Amino acid sequence: MTYCVAMKLATGMVFASDSRTNAGIDHISRFDKMRVFSKPAERVIVTLSAGNLSVTQNTLNLLDRRSQQNPDSPTLMNVASLYDVAELIGTTMREIKQRDAEYLRQNNIDASASFIVGGQIAGEVPRLFLVYSEGNFIETSHHTPYFQSGEVKYGKPVIDRVLHNDTSIRDAVKLALVSFDSTMRSNVSVGPPIDLLVYENDKLAVTMSRRIEEGDPYFGEIARYWNDGLKHAFAETPGPDWLSG
Amino acid sequence: MTYCVAMKLATGMVFASDSRTNAGIDHISRFDKMRVFSKPAERVIVTLSAGNLSVTQNTLNLLDRRSQQNPDSPTLMNVASLYDVAELIGTTMREIKQRDAEYLRQNNIDASASFIVGGQIAGEVPRLFLVYSEGNFIETSHHTPYFQSGEVKYGKPVIDRVLHNDTSIRDAVKLALVSFDSTMRSNVSVGPPIDLLVYENDKLAVTMSRRIEEGDPYFGEIARYWNDGLKHAFAETPGPDWLSG
Repeated sequence: MTYCVAMKLATGMVFASDSRTNAGIDHISRFDKMRVFSKPAERVIVTLSAGNLSVTQNTLNLLDRRSQQNPDSPTLMNVASLYDVAELIGTTMREIKQRDAEYLRQNNIDASASFIVGGQIAGEVPRLFLVYSEGNFIETSHHTPYFQSGEVKYGKPVIDRVLHNDTSIRDAVKLALVSFDSTMRSNVSVGPPIDLLVYENDKLAVTMSRRIEEGDPYFGEIARYWNDGLKHAFAETPGPDWLSG
Repeated sequence: MTYCVAMKLATGMVFASDSRTNAGIDHISRFDKMRVFSKPAERVIVTLSAGNLSVTQNTLNLLDRRSQQNPDSPTLMNVASLYDVAELIGTTMREIKQRDAEYLRQNNIDASASFIVGGQIAGEVPRLFLVYSEGNFIETSHHTPYFQSGEVKYGKPVIDRVLHNDTSIRDAVKLALVSFDSTMRSNVSVGPPIDLLVYENDKLAVTMSRRIEEGDPYFGEIARYWNDGLKHAFAETPGPDWLSG
């Protein structure tokens, strides 16, 4: 199972993804779900993939392959807008599914897949998109400045309560990890390493990237503080006065 | 959408269910998802239903109907064990699905449904079961003393952190409502009224039942305290010292 989250803030963006691919409990492997396409001073594009690994990998690989065969073909490294990036990923994913999905269906294999894609291209503001399995896509709004994919529900309530457009990057990194902690407690197939990436507006270069491995001291601290904080919040919440005991 | 939760504690049980049935946003109706079958000093059985309403309603109605036609036929009011209750519900639900499911499938209507059923029958300890859509069923264990059905994920993390076998009934009622608050914040199709029921071990009668309507002052207090408590817990959780700002 996958869990990915990306947040668009007033000052930048935070991306986080786990690295586990699950094909049954006895076969858990690790593949990078986060990929970065960057050219200093010109563009930083981050993709977080979820769902069928062959579909998401092939989507990006097909774009690479075409670029090798014809340098003028559109790729994440040469299109002019993040909008074009989202459309290109959606269209290419449709091609892959057209090629493979029927064969997967014959064996009851789920071909669904999605991408969160964001970053900045020189001349544009930073933008963040979610490309659905069907290839259509949406962009963040002021009211919903984040996207999740994969096992989204366990980690969503805390984001909904805490995240605003003016949340700091530092708080957003903490929030992403709290959200991962909630997800991992409820779904054992989501787990470290967690890939984290921070982009600050208009830098046109990755500000910070970090892989959080099993046993990471800061992630352990978050889990402890958050667990104690929730128990404290529960204790402080009043009980029903219409019930004795 | 539905959300139901039932918890089995050392001293009793807490049941909670919302009352909304959703067939598209323009058609939200209310039907009781909680039903109580009781006979003082002899049995208290509580069912919480989720999923396709015609399947769950028909399951219980078919048992009523048969009992009218033949008072000796097995019903929730006459079988000797909660185990038999769970089996009877599972078997009857299979009958209904055998009759209706193929017709529903022809119109892409989801026939899945489930029951949480618990309580106590004289001569037995209190027991709590989950009857799956396929008619098979499981009972709570010491490690997992609760069941949820419907929109379960948003409200699960807090239960996993707080609930133990020795949680008091009063705390379990509070916990059920906190769990409802988390669910309702993330899924607008789950909402009040919330039906609450408390059963104390060996009473063989309902201890407390209460309908929490829209605007209930205690439920509003829970929502406020819990929201503030979570924000406080987040603020107290340390930020990453490897990130400036």
